Amino acid sequence: MKAPSEPRHIAAIDLGSNSFHMVVAQVIDQDLQLVSRHKQRVRLASGLDDNKKLDAEAINRGLDCLAMFAERIQGFAPENVRIAATHTLRQAANAQKFIERAWAILPYPIEIIPGMEEGRLIYLGVAHTQPQSDSMLVVDIGGGSTEMVIGQGFEAQLVNSLQMGCVSYNQRFFSQGKLSKKRFAQAFVAAQQKLESVARQYRKKGWQSAFGSSGTIKAVREVLIGIGYDDGIITIERLETLIDKLCEKTQIEELDIKGLNDERKPVFAAGVAILYAILKDLNIKEMHFSQGALREGLLYEMEDRFKCSDIRLRTTESLAQKHRVDLEHAAKIKGLARQFFEQINPNAKISAQDHELVDLLEWGALLHEVGLSISLQGYHRHSEYILRYTNMPGFNSEQQLVLSTLARFQRKALKLNEMPDFTLYKRKQIIRLIRILRLAIVLNGQRSDELLPEIFLTAEDNVWTLSSQDAEWLEKNKLLHADLLSEQQYWENIGWTLIF
Amino acid sequence: MKAPSEPRHIAAIDLGSNSFHMVVAQVIDQDLQLVSRHKQRVRLASGLDDNKKLDAEAINRGLDCLAMFAERIQGFAPENVRIAATHTLRQAANAQKFIERAWAILPYPIEIIPGMEEGRLIYLGVAHTQPQSDSMLVVDIGGGSTEMVIGQGFEAQLVNSLQMGCVSYNQRFFSQGKLSKKRFAQAFVAAQQKLESVARQYRKKGWQSAFGSSGTIKAVREVLIGIGYDDGIITIERLETLIDKLCEKTQIEELDIKGLNDERKPVFAAGVAILYAILKDLNIKEMHFSQGALREGLLYEMEDRFKCSDIRLRTTESLAQKHRVDLEHAAKIKGLARQFFEQINPNAKISAQDHELVDLLEWGALLHEVGLSISLQGYHRHSEYILRYTNMPGFNSEQQLVLSTLARFQRKALKLNEMPDFTLYKRKQIIRLIRILRLAIVLNGQRSDELLPEIFLTAEDNVWTLSSQDAEWLEKNKLLHADLLSEQQYWENIGWTLIF
Repeated sequence: MKAPSEPRHIAAIDLGSNSFHMVVAQVIDQDLQLVSRHKQRVRLASGLDDNKKLDAEAINRGLDCLAMFAERIQGFAPENVRIAATHTLRQAANAQKFIERAWAILPYPIEIIPGMEEGRLIYLGVAHTQPQSDSMLVVDIGGGSTEMVIGQGFEAQLVNSLQMGCVSYNQRFFSQGKLSKKRFAQAFVAAQQKLESVARQYRKKGWQSAFGSSGTIKAVREVLIGIGYDDGIITIERLETLIDKLCEKTQIEELDIKGLNDERKPVFAAGVAILYAILKDLNIKEMHFSQGALREGLLYEMEDRFKCSDIRLRTTESLAQKHRVDLEHAAKIKGLARQFFEQINPNAKISAQDHELVDLLEWGALLHEVGLSISLQGYHRHSEYILRYTNMPGFNSEQQLVLSTLARFQRKALKLNEMPDFTLYKRKQIIRLIRILRLAIVLNGQRSDELLPEIFLTAEDNVWTLSSQDAEWLEKNKLLHADLLSEQQYWENIGWTLIF
Repeated sequence: MKAPSEPRHIAAIDLGSNSFHMVVAQVIDQDLQLVSRHKQRVRLASGLDDNKKLDAEAINRGLDCLAMFAERIQGFAPENVRIAATHTLRQAANAQKFIERAWAILPYPIEIIPGMEEGRLIYLGVAHTQPQSDSMLVVDIGGGSTEMVIGQGFEAQLVNSLQMGCVSYNQRFFSQGKLSKKRFAQAFVAAQQKLESVARQYRKKGWQSAFGSSGTIKAVREVLIGIGYDDGIITIERLETLIDKLCEKTQIEELDIKGLNDERKPVFAAGVAILYAILKDLNIKEMHFSQGALREGLLYEMEDRFKCSDIRLRTTESLAQKHRVDLEHAAKIKGLARQFFEQINPNAKISAQDHELVDLLEWGALLHEVGLSISLQGYHRHSEYILRYTNMPGFNSEQQLVLSTLARFQRKALKLNEMPDFTLYKRKQIIRLIRILRLAIVLNGQRSDELLPEIFLTAEDNVWTLSSQDAEWLEKNKLLHADLLSEQQYWENIGWTLIF
């Protein structure tokens, strides 16, 4: 523990499609006190070409911004910084290149988070910023995606992330800065089409207060105040007044609206069209602006994790339940896997990343059989599919990919050429987890209630050895012996050695 | 209705990995009366090479047998014949070729059925053959796969199909006719490894009486009778006596056991090893032989379907429930899809295959959103995955493939090059269903409670037209209009025309 005179500082960075943001806060007792906010309009989304490749200019704008952020948080410990990337980096085929170059400038891991996870974190950011209300709708219109969340307290309950945003809609409907009533109507209908499949769920669920976060909605609020609506509350009627004003012009650059700054101007009409569709289709009477957003969500969750109320625990448990995982069996494998991990990492003090890896190993053990809910035959592939595509609150895209990879390689031939690339973790680390999990599974293969003798694992490069104080442990259990021989063969096929 | 003097005859054919079987029965009042059984040992499995290709000799043996069957059932109406193929044709890469050539000889559709479905039908065959008992375990050791089912009455409750069979195990453990204690032990342990993941479920669930069906178990029964166990009941102790006898020899051809016929001899030891592992691991005290098997299951289900108690109805409904499908929404789409199908097939009398297609269309409509249980993004692909790999009692492999294909192509770009091949249906028929389903989905896209005006569909080649008596139906609903324009674009991209 540090002395109370030196409060811990933490920072959260959000690499959005339109802007990059950073917030820095200090932890005082149980509270977070925001220290500073930083923002730069990077327009990453506009650098994405038709082949989903980020161009060099956009990458450089992004890296310049990160260099600026890096100065501010120099010397922060790794566990005190969290960086999340959203829609454009989710889309970009060369995201990994960007992330690699970013590492040289800002040596903290960049997590690409799924849209649903973005929604949950935005909700959390707003929930921590607003006075508590019974239930809350939060809408965030970003550059590339729009999140809509209904929740209660700090818990997001209905989450969706739709692929529409002010940058992408601007390119699609207001290209070359052209503006017209017709273009606006097209953007509005396109947004309605996106909303079509989900709007009803929101109307049905309902909420007490509605909040909007981030740039588009902030700009609308400021413009409404400029028009004379001093309370800044957004309503359908007020938006319609604003839209009439917008559609008087034929060029976006001609817009001369009080409260609208030059940076926001290019994507303003597109953002208003999306917002208008949301207000209409969700039947929102009034919407307030909230300062809280994704970065605040990241920040508060960093602090929550330290308090051990990890949302990921809830996610994995509810997923296991939903797919009717045999919890007793999973617990045995989880326990043995953890034990093996510790046996081959004997240094008492394991690093923060080791902690993370053990967590992933344990969750992988808990969830490796979810695919049985689809079918026994090839269930490792079904588990992989489910863990890859299911919404898993609290996990970034790569952590989710680790879980699905562990599931994929839990048994059968080790076709490691099918293994995906990782940026947050080293391939070697993931392979280590795969080996541990496989051994823990094989050793529990008989699903019997009989206890195994205590088994020890040692690892030296590619040679792993299982042993027991009971020299006859394998003679006593012929079936286990046969299973280990089969497993040994799988290892041998790719040049690994398993000794027992 | 035919006159009572001419009872309806039905036939079921089972293309197994070791033998092909046919049973013919006549329907008398509510009962089936077996008329004749036919069997030929075709050893299809032994013609499967390492690349999963059936060799020419095996194909010819199969076709010769079908020619023989064809004579017996000449003139049977298509709805009175059902042909199911199992493990070897599930595996064979060139199964389609075999099926095409078979059509020229025996012009009835051959359905490849999934292992789980095979298990269910075997159970049904035994259940119809045995006096009713409280609960029943049925084991069937085939040439390539082994099915184990626990059920009550006519309902299979716990089903598994494992990839082990007397032909494949013979090739693996008794190659070139060699026999030894060690080889037998290896085959036994390999079977135990297969059973490992499921045996516990069976022991836990329990049963009242255990039955074995098909060749291997029939042969064991006969040999036990030959040894002197007149009741033919199979027990662990008796099997052990038999195994001791087997392992005295070093060559399978030396076996000289009373009751063992020459046809069965080559694969007998492998079958016994599997059976012994099952008796031991499931803890079966005694097993009786049952005449009922897959072909009887097929036969009784043909009759049941006429009685309208279609198991597929139950399957689709429980799947929809499991994945929490919005049933109200699905019902609307289903209704409209059926209506469209009838509008463009105006001939009052639709054929048996049309009936089948309408059924598939309706089930496709019911199930097209199961993938939402994984995630909204790309849910058509998740639906495809689930419908492709889930165990769906009552459906053959290709019907299941139709449902997953309908789900896959329910929305978004029509990448028809990703469409699988079908043998029971024409590609054109499936595309027709896809179009109908898409239109029914688009027209219900707003999930609103407001009723659509009545809409008519006409189809002429690739030009399909939607119309309504309310000439302004699209002006009144701009969003629907926009959705139809998007759909029109998808059609146009692959050369289809949609007019409204």
